[in-house]
Amino acid sequence: MTSPTTPAAVVRADGRAPDQLRPVTITRGWLDSAEGSVLVEFGRTRVLCAASFTEGVPRWKKGSGEGWVTAEYAMLPRATNERSQRESVKGRIGGRTHEISRLIGRSLRAVVDVSALGENTIVLDCDVLQADGGTRTAAITGAYVALADAVAWGRRHGHVTGGKQVLTDSVAAVSVGIVDGVPMLDLPYVEDVRAETDMNVVTTGSGAFVEVQGTAEHAPFDRAELDALLDLAVAGTTELTRLQEAALAQELAR
Amino acid sequence: MTSPTTPAAVVRADGRAPDQLRPVTITRGWLDSAEGSVLVEFGRTRVLCAASFTEGVPRWKKGSGEGWVTAEYAMLPRATNERSQRESVKGRIGGRTHEISRLIGRSLRAVVDVSALGENTIVLDCDVLQADGGTRTAAITGAYVALADAVAWGRRHGHVTGGKQVLTDSVAAVSVGIVDGVPMLDLPYVEDVRAETDMNVVTTGSGAFVEVQGTAEHAPFDRAELDALLDLAVAGTTELTRLQEAALAQELAR
Amino acid sequence: MTSPTTPAAVVRADGRAPDQLRPVTITRGWLDSAEGSVLVEFGRTRVLCAASFTEGVPRWKKGSGEGWVTAEYAMLPRATNERSQRESVKGRIGGRTHEISRLIGRSLRAVVDVSALGENTIVLDCDVLQADGGTRTAAITGAYVALADAVAWGRRHGHVTGGKQVLTDSVAAVSVGIVDGVPMLDLPYVEDVRAETDMNVVTTGSGAFVEVQGTAEHAPFDRAELDALLDLAVAGTTELTRLQEAALAQELAR
Amino acid sequence: MTSPTTPAAVVRADGRAPDQLRPVTITRGWLDSAEGSVLVEFGRTRVLCAASFTEGVPRWKKGSGEGWVTAEYAMLPRATNERSQRESVKGRIGGRTHEISRLIGRSLRAVVDVSALGENTIVLDCDVLQADGGTRTAAITGAYVALADAVAWGRRHGHVTGGKQVLTDSVAAVSVGIVDGVPMLDLPYVEDVRAETDMNVVTTGSGAFVEVQGTAEHAPFDRAELDALLDLAVAGTTELTRLQEAALAQELAR
Amino acid sequence: MTSPTTPAAVVRADGRAPDQLRPVTITRGWLDSAEGSVLVEFGRTRVLCAASFTEGVPRWKKGSGEGWVTAEYAMLPRATNERSQRESVKGRIGGRTHEISRLIGRSLRAVVDVSALGENTIVLDCDVLQADGGTRTAAITGAYVALADAVAWGRRHGHVTGGKQVLTDSVAAVSVGIVDGVPMLDLPYVEDVRAETDMNVVTTGSGAFVEVQGTAEHAPFDRAELDALLDLAVAGTTELTRLQEAALAQELAR
Amino acid sequence: MTSPTTPAAVVRADGRAPDQLRPVTITRGWLDSAEGSVLVEFGRTRVLCAASFTEGVPRWKKGSGEGWVTAEYAMLPRATNERSQRESVKGRIGGRTHEISRLIGRSLRAVVDVSALGENTIVLDCDVLQADGGTRTAAITGAYVALADAVAWGRRHGHVTGGKQVLTDSVAAVSVGIVDGVPMLDLPYVEDVRAETDMNVVTTGSGAFVEVQGTAEHAPFDRAELDALLDLAVAGTTELTRLQEAALAQELAR
Repeated sequence: MTSPTTPAAVVRADGRAPDQLRPVTITRGWLDSAEGSVLVEFGRTRVLCAASFTEGVPRWKKGSGEGWVTAEYAMLPRATNERSQRESVKGRIGGRTHEISRLIGRSLRAVVDVSALGENTIVLDCDVLQADGGTRTAAITGAYVALADAVAWGRRHGHVTGGKQVLTDSVAAVSVGIVDGVPMLDLPYVEDVRAETDMNVVTTGSGAFVEVQGTAEHAPFDRAELDALLDLAVAGTTELTRLQEAALAQELAR
Repeated sequence: MTSPTTPAAVVRADGRAPDQLRPVTITRGWLDSAEGSVLVEFGRTRVLCAASFTEGVPRWKKGSGEGWVTAEYAMLPRATNERSQRESVKGRIGGRTHEISRLIGRSLRAVVDVSALGENTIVLDCDVLQADGGTRTAAITGAYVALADAVAWGRRHGHVTGGKQVLTDSVAAVSVGIVDGVPMLDLPYVEDVRAETDMNVVTTGSGAFVEVQGTAEHAPFDRAELDALLDLAVAGTTELTRLQEAALAQELAR
Repeated sequence: MTSPTTPAAVVRADGRAPDQLRPVTITRGWLDSAEGSVLVEFGRTRVLCAASFTEGVPRWKKGSGEGWVTAEYAMLPRATNERSQRESVKGRIGGRTHEISRLIGRSLRAVVDVSALGENTIVLDCDVLQADGGTRTAAITGAYVALADAVAWGRRHGHVTGGKQVLTDSVAAVSVGIVDGVPMLDLPYVEDVRAETDMNVVTTGSGAFVEVQGTAEHAPFDRAELDALLDLAVAGTTELTRLQEAALAQELAR
Repeated sequence: MTSPTTPAAVVRADGRAPDQLRPVTITRGWLDSAEGSVLVEFGRTRVLCAASFTEGVPRWKKGSGEGWVTAEYAMLPRATNERSQRESVKGRIGGRTHEISRLIGRSLRAVVDVSALGENTIVLDCDVLQADGGTRTAAITGAYVALADAVAWGRRHGHVTGGKQVLTDSVAAVSVGIVDGVPMLDLPYVEDVRAETDMNVVTTGSGAFVEVQGTAEHAPFDRAELDALLDLAVAGTTELTRLQEAALAQELAR
Repeated sequence: MTSPTTPAAVVRADGRAPDQLRPVTITRGWLDSAEGSVLVEFGRTRVLCAASFTEGVPRWKKGSGEGWVTAEYAMLPRATNERSQRESVKGRIGGRTHEISRLIGRSLRAVVDVSALGENTIVLDCDVLQADGGTRTAAITGAYVALADAVAWGRRHGHVTGGKQVLTDSVAAVSVGIVDGVPMLDLPYVEDVRAETDMNVVTTGSGAFVEVQGTAEHAPFDRAELDALLDLAVAGTTELTRLQEAALAQELAR
Repeated sequence: MTSPTTPAAVVRADGRAPDQLRPVTITRGWLDSAEGSVLVEFGRTRVLCAASFTEGVPRWKKGSGEGWVTAEYAMLPRATNERSQRESVKGRIGGRTHEISRLIGRSLRAVVDVSALGENTIVLDCDVLQADGGTRTAAITGAYVALADAVAWGRRHGHVTGGKQVLTDSVAAVSVGIVDGVPMLDLPYVEDVRAETDMNVVTTGSGAFVEVQGTAEHAPFDRAELDALLDLAVAGTTELTRLQEAALAQELAR
């Protein structure tokens, strides 16, 4: 395999450059009653992230003085091009759903100081309303903002006290992949299915890695390709971090 | 119990008159790939209705020459004030979910000529993004519009043929109830929990009844109350029919 | 559609007049150990209603001083003409079962003063041994009698105390429908499947409505039809109330 | 342990001698539509056995020329002294239910010539309406009679043809146990819970064993005890065989 | 059927005499962390028995001063000649699995003095790694040895105290069957499928019966056959008891 | 964080150097009937990998001319220090199980030419008999060898034909992690729980990456740490590839 390069001339189906994100919007306060909520859009991918703050922790954390943050991911049946059966109707959650829920939870916990949170629980529900690739990375990126709002809610309402920051950093995620030999950032569905290699990268706002999940979909990849993908991903999450900060800098109407 | 009246002086918490609907919006084409899709809002209640058109019918209808229309209703975990557990995680669908799914399906089938549809299936997914009372009636009202778009899609793409109308009429639904002795139209959550009697009424566009489901929540009701509620409901569905027609009269951008 | 009438000349397949109930029998004490039990028969429809009285209430009612009444409905696999699969074998309860269980529970609670019951629970199990239409209405009618016996048992054994009546009224239910344009009372299976409109009505002994569930099975119905059905239903539940009183007036052998 | 004997002087709580069955009744045709149905009573134990005859066999027997006989056992929630949770609500069938269903199926198949049955299926549903010990043995004894009626139905309706007998013998079952050192026949619940050893024996009408299931509930048993129990059981099933024959000798009203 | 005999001349496919066990090995301490563990082999049948000792008992035994012993049996998907689906994937445990788990638990409890065990629980997991007939009897035989090691562990670690023996006897099990008219001991799969009658017998080390489960697979059996099978089985479990004692007499390396 | 180094002086609890694998054994033919089977051990971690070869493919691949390779991973309840509940008993598969099953399947498919396999299916069952860290990497490493044996079986028995190689390369996996600031290879459980960062790496025999899954368990990691871990992992899988080749070079006894 030739060494991966990002030819200046490559233009993608949607007109983007290989190292360009899709249009990203982060709408805070999309739900009226959730302690934090965000409708996040990466192009056509649209994920509703709701953060529910409740006092108390699961039984196995009681008395620890520590809080708990967890996440559940799901997709509406017609989020995709073809309708898929509801997992509630099947009576069981699929492997992919489980895997992504766990990934989102781990990613968020990487920037949470559970002792600063105190014995409170925040559940992040990430429901994909429309799926066009990158749903898990959009979910992580949006969920962080909803989480920040829920933490602020907890502090405003006196459930979170003390001088320590609950959030030690921010967290954002993006997908990268090699399509027709070219490393590309933030793949929509049509690129995702054609990618030889597909990688999801989660980083903190300060640029450290939280998760790196690379998969050879159609062809094993070498170290040079891996390096190129990591570079691209870090550039993407840096930009997403900036967008998260901008969204959080605004006054929330409610 | 005194005979139910609608005193001119009664003003509701949200400023409405007893016989007034909440602000209703019907946004067609909310999803990019569904054959029909509507985001319907009755005040804060927000339901995403997606219609999926597929060729073929379930096994038990094969060879009948007839189509099939069915519906599935669900609620996102944080649609409500307090988070509820996902039915996919519980591994089973609750009684309320089942009941409403069946109601939506029956209501829509009441205006479908399955022989005109031919051996095609349309599934209506009604997912409540935010719940503030009347989710099932909003779902039926929005689902009809999504269904109409899906039928039109089927005709445009040559799956539905012949001169017969698939939709013999339109269908809309509204809730009514007696709150503090006063019959009221289109109850939000705060009124719903206080209602002595609660009724969901589904009618066709031409004003006939498709479903009447009245329940004495806190006190049995007499014939005069029942009559007052039916009058109020029919006025409500008449207005909703008009709004459906207006929505369908617009050009769909896609 | 012409206005619905009840022509004197109409005779039904089983020889009844349109406004006539099937032969109804209510056998109390059918089980040796249940606190209340009734085998109720509406023609060939045969439902075993068992009332189980236990001290204590579900967690969410603890300390409220109030009791709880709930119901579960099910059908034996060969209650019907063709054997149906067991829901225990399928591993999930169907929508219809859920819906009817909820209806029975709500109907009974409409006549229960839970504070007079004290922190006790009564579960009504309504198992259909043979089904020939009207199983849910037979179940409600029989379950009320079993409930009355269970309440009496609770009082005799000192679990229910105080001067207040637990049962504020009685409750009975019947199905009505429009068959070949004629409103008819208490439909057996052969009429039920042909009915254009089908309605289940639950009333108190004093004649107020507890539930009205009308469904256009094959054709929407107008207000005149609705009124005719309600009249017929109230006449039916009035007769059923009389039969319940007669059954409860007898000495229970055990 | 002393050798087991049956002292002439022992009288049981219900007045029976140790080697005496409870009053047994076998009511054929209890259901109107099942191809065979029996309400069988062993004292207070009451089991409804329904035999459903259908043409065709499960996939794995197709083309074999052979039929299939199977059974499902279940208990109504209030068959017992204390209400038990429904297995349909739990979403899974318990070990005991599974075990007994399998036992009934095996016992019946021991007397069925599946090639004489042809490619037809008979399902036996044995639902315990009231349980007072010996439910599985009553179920087998009653199910055989329902099976015989269903086979006769199949022959009358031309589904079973040819000169060979489908039923090569009859089958009956009874429980025996050692209570306070005394071997006893047909244990009701109060004896069953106290039995040191408990055995269920299934025999053919001609006296051969189909199943012998002995369990040391509270104390291991020796060969002499085993022999005494077997003698008692065979005497019991011999009497049950006579009762089955008498029931089948009657004209079935329908 | 002629009377069953054990002709001296009969030689089985694997060269054994009819009354001979397969080579049996009992390997203690196969797992590093379980409180007791045994890999038991009856010929090619290979079962891993792990005993887990935990302090405390299920809720319904709390405060009783008594312990609890239970067992779970399962088979790896490729233990058999053809791969079977995992029960975890199916989402439910089959009847056979349930039945055998219950048998193992009952058999072990027959030799446990739960009051001597104190409020401790021992769970025996019997997982069939390779199946060639007799898996349940191998499981019981091996599980007893693992149980003995777990009890000794509990005593060494001070969880089991007092002078009473926890194990009042040992327990072993073997299958027997009639193949081509000849009663045979310890059937491998090829004989098992051909057996007319199949019996599993569990005895204590002192020779009393704990369970006798005889099933007519292809032909009912008479008393003489039953007696011959019991004789053969008792000889087999006597030999297995000796092998258990020999295994337990060795020093356990860890 | 200081830059990660591998100080020569670091000695691990089990005496290994940071870049040293645990003792690895690969025992082929551990099962008598599976088409391929391997007991693979990485130190105390012991996984039984069974490859089942069957003709035919799942419905969605029929007629494609291509085969299918999939995997299921599970853990015996007492594989771990504390007993865990069976997933078959819980009635659902956990997220971790799903995730690992999918990883194993993807990893193996990366080296399979499905068109060379023809319409045949190979299922790899990887059951953890004892778990001491690295179970998924041991499973992949062992499963590849079982897969190779199953492919050879398919060729020997004429199910796989044609001149193309089914296996385009080999595949092996290992875990790496940063413990106390030191990157280490092949972590046992005690190191795994303490690791700041944990990574599973799957490579082909020719050294390309198939999967890279890095997770910040306790602290985000930087690029230098990521690079150090990848170097270590590739050295490990290179050694594992050599061990796989050695195992496959031996004559399989059966």
